[in-house]
Amino acid sequence: MSLIKKILVANRGEIALRIMRTAREMNISTVAIFSEADRKSLHVRYADEAVCIGPAPSAESYLRADKIIKISKELNVDAIHPGYGFLSENADFAGQVKEAGLIFIGPSAHAIEIMGNKLAAKQAAGKYNIPMVPGTSSAVTDRVEAKVVAASIGYPVLIKASGGGGGKGMRVVENEAEFDEQMDRAVSEAISSFGDGAVFIEKYITSPKHIEIQVLGDQHGNIIHLFERECSIQRRHQKVIEEAPSISVTPEIREAMGRCAIDVARSCGYYGAGTVEFIMDERRNFYFLEMNTRLQVEHPVTEQITGVDLVRQMIKIAEGEQLAIRQEDLFIKGHAVEVRVYAEDASNNFLPDVGKLETYVRPQGNGVRVDDGFEQGMEIPIYYDPMIAKLITYGENREEAISKMTRAIDEYQISGVQTTLEFCRFVMQHEVFVNGTFDTNFVNQFFTPKNLLKQPDTHILQLAAFMTAKISAAGDIARPTQMEPDAAIVSKWRARKLNSN
Amino acid sequence: MSLIKKILVANRGEIALRIMRTAREMNISTVAIFSEADRKSLHVRYADEAVCIGPAPSAESYLRADKIIKISKELNVDAIHPGYGFLSENADFAGQVKEAGLIFIGPSAHAIEIMGNKLAAKQAAGKYNIPMVPGTSSAVTDRVEAKVVAASIGYPVLIKASGGGGGKGMRVVENEAEFDEQMDRAVSEAISSFGDGAVFIEKYITSPKHIEIQVLGDQHGNIIHLFERECSIQRRHQKVIEEAPSISVTPEIREAMGRCAIDVARSCGYYGAGTVEFIMDERRNFYFLEMNTRLQVEHPVTEQITGVDLVRQMIKIAEGEQLAIRQEDLFIKGHAVEVRVYAEDASNNFLPDVGKLETYVRPQGNGVRVDDGFEQGMEIPIYYDPMIAKLITYGENREEAISKMTRAIDEYQISGVQTTLEFCRFVMQHEVFVNGTFDTNFVNQFFTPKNLLKQPDTHILQLAAFMTAKISAAGDIARPTQMEPDAAIVSKWRARKLNSN
Repeated sequence: MSLIKKILVANRGEIALRIMRTAREMNISTVAIFSEADRKSLHVRYADEAVCIGPAPSAESYLRADKIIKISKELNVDAIHPGYGFLSENADFAGQVKEAGLIFIGPSAHAIEIMGNKLAAKQAAGKYNIPMVPGTSSAVTDRVEAKVVAASIGYPVLIKASGGGGGKGMRVVENEAEFDEQMDRAVSEAISSFGDGAVFIEKYITSPKHIEIQVLGDQHGNIIHLFERECSIQRRHQKVIEEAPSISVTPEIREAMGRCAIDVARSCGYYGAGTVEFIMDERRNFYFLEMNTRLQVEHPVTEQITGVDLVRQMIKIAEGEQLAIRQEDLFIKGHAVEVRVYAEDASNNFLPDVGKLETYVRPQGNGVRVDDGFEQGMEIPIYYDPMIAKLITYGENREEAISKMTRAIDEYQISGVQTTLEFCRFVMQHEVFVNGTFDTNFVNQFFTPKNLLKQPDTHILQLAAFMTAKISAAGDIARPTQMEPDAAIVSKWRARKLNSN
Repeated sequence: MSLIKKILVANRGEIALRIMRTAREMNISTVAIFSEADRKSLHVRYADEAVCIGPAPSAESYLRADKIIKISKELNVDAIHPGYGFLSENADFAGQVKEAGLIFIGPSAHAIEIMGNKLAAKQAAGKYNIPMVPGTSSAVTDRVEAKVVAASIGYPVLIKASGGGGGKGMRVVENEAEFDEQMDRAVSEAISSFGDGAVFIEKYITSPKHIEIQVLGDQHGNIIHLFERECSIQRRHQKVIEEAPSISVTPEIREAMGRCAIDVARSCGYYGAGTVEFIMDERRNFYFLEMNTRLQVEHPVTEQITGVDLVRQMIKIAEGEQLAIRQEDLFIKGHAVEVRVYAEDASNNFLPDVGKLETYVRPQGNGVRVDDGFEQGMEIPIYYDPMIAKLITYGENREEAISKMTRAIDEYQISGVQTTLEFCRFVMQHEVFVNGTFDTNFVNQFFTPKNLLKQPDTHILQLAAFMTAKISAAGDIARPTQMEPDAAIVSKWRARKLNSN
């Protein structure tokens, strides 16, 4: 019955492990690829077979579609899972995999191609009744034409490169006086970054929330949605904290968004796991932004509230199975929050801070999930995204999920590199996050490095002395003893607490 | 509002950590107690304050009610959580805690007392329409009287000490000819073990399943149930694998059992978390066995399928809050399995095998929870129950939960002591476990040490050489490299797989 007996995971780190774990649960063998920098990575050790694919830079290893396909053929691989990033949204790669007689665990090359181009995506989705941010429906290069459009939309407007992403080639224009200059800058940035000067102009939403809908489609035309995730807490235009469900989405909006997401997926004949992203304004109007044609980093929060293993579904869909889950079987149970633990210095504009994980002890317990690809003593390579781990918590409701997250952050022991943990703790305890009125401006608006509660290593030693004294005093009551806490493993939480006393 | 600001956890190991984690999530300070053998335990480091309470033997430390109450008063503790075992079902202790002006996080001393005595429990429950195993309704000491009862019930019968537990003072009598001898033995065992020769006689069920219902009651008379757990896989009359829900319980039986469990709880004015145990025969008749008036070892499987944090509920109930969960809010989502990882030699009648955890790496990933109290390098003390960890997996359905459990067992790396992991793996893959027709005789019926797939440490070194060869061969295709796997961290799974090739 099952077509796939061996999967090559064309990725690294936590997502490679994530995929291999589910493959193993399905009795599917796994092949890892690794660059020279990742020789000692956990995903290499976890796989049944592992092949070094080239030097550290991605272009010479994880992006080498030709090598990946060749290795797959040689090792009798049945299917390739691309993970996220790297080749995951490369339509050519998906096409080549298919041509080589292998299964691509993801959508068709056609769907990737359409959704990979913002304008093509909007045109496809336009056939359905999908709300779009007011703006140009086709690419603009002419300044005069663009200005007329901007005036008709009403300022502020956003100029956005057609082929862009991650904030590049994006300009906010507050009023007509500054339009020409910003337009010129956007076009030249678009040319230098993406080799294409086409831009489009749209209404700029001042207090936007980023809400996205997870969809699953099979190869027989069945598409379901698995509710929303809110990903409004971003730094450098990139998500850092996500949750499901969103505190701002009502059941009515959820249903409407879910229907729209299914329509967007249908507009490109989508199958596999995908995510339809929306922007939502203060009055809860939502607009289609784009579709990501892959597994998302933040997929675990959806898994936690629905109980569905998304990777398992992707593999079954790739095998040609019909979706066994019907829309009416799905419901939201509880609340999940994810924070991305990056090796970054939040006090210095979130600059990457790679190095060795001198201490690395994961939090545990009820409602805590850690998806990572590191262990104590490992180096975080400078060549790739500096994400160390995804920390996910689950609770009966949002308040409980947040309290578990705060506890889990406090329990996480990482030394050797700066991390975003303290920043995430700040967010979890911020009134605006707790009450749900935050938007994508949260970090710029509320965060300064001063908000970080620093724990210099020297405090730990003071603490050891403090604790011995404290415990002895208590011990007098019962049976006086000396306790020698191991300074290296004293919980950060206790250190913090004592310091704040 | 919240009365409890500081909790003393009168326990050790995983359950002490389990309770403290939830306390921390609720912003409640924690006090650990520890014996001299547990000085370096994780629960000691995790707590805000820790007090050594005495020498290693439980009678001189964890069972010292007087010291525990004294310490609590001195450290301004508001409430004591007893965990399971030790003082958790000691009515005197619960009473003394209350008398000292402290909150006991558990039921009233009265409820503990009634349910702690099998006959008193049956008498209390008898006021409701609770099905009981056919047998004596009061204690018997007279042999002649007992034999008349046995004849009227019909053989086989079970003779059971009134004050017993854990299989002590229990005798199965197949026919009248052996009755006298077995009765004499049971009575003398009961006297020597419990100081009380009273026994009762009941119908012996040949193919029993152990099914139990989790209940929660508040101090205002509201009682709900959180469905069943099946705990039929036992060795030495003690649970080793549990799951929720039970594959053998239909919605109708679930509802009936749930109602009975609530009635049993009501019969003793129960509040807090408790468990009503039933025995179910082949025709799915169920009978009340006993009520455990504490948090159970296996409570996490219920947490996984309901999303309810039972410790949080216990604390809220102890504070006098009304239950915020109504019966109609609860439903079962997915399936959870727990295996107890004991430091025991399954090939040698599950004898404890204490020692040092030379290697200790926990499994991770989607649907995996580990509740433990150890880390690599720690010693497992000989003084206490040799449980290292509880490994819990969760999936959309039973099949998925089992596949995740098998994967997680394979990922768990423990060396230095023998564990029950391989035994649990054997169970997960056994047809009778998978199809659900197992009963409490499973281990005796199907398990022999030959079923264990042994992995002598020497294989790991052979494996390292094997792997280098394997990866090099694959590497020829791409970029030949030598990989030096760290022998100590090569996954057991790969070792097993390669060995079985």
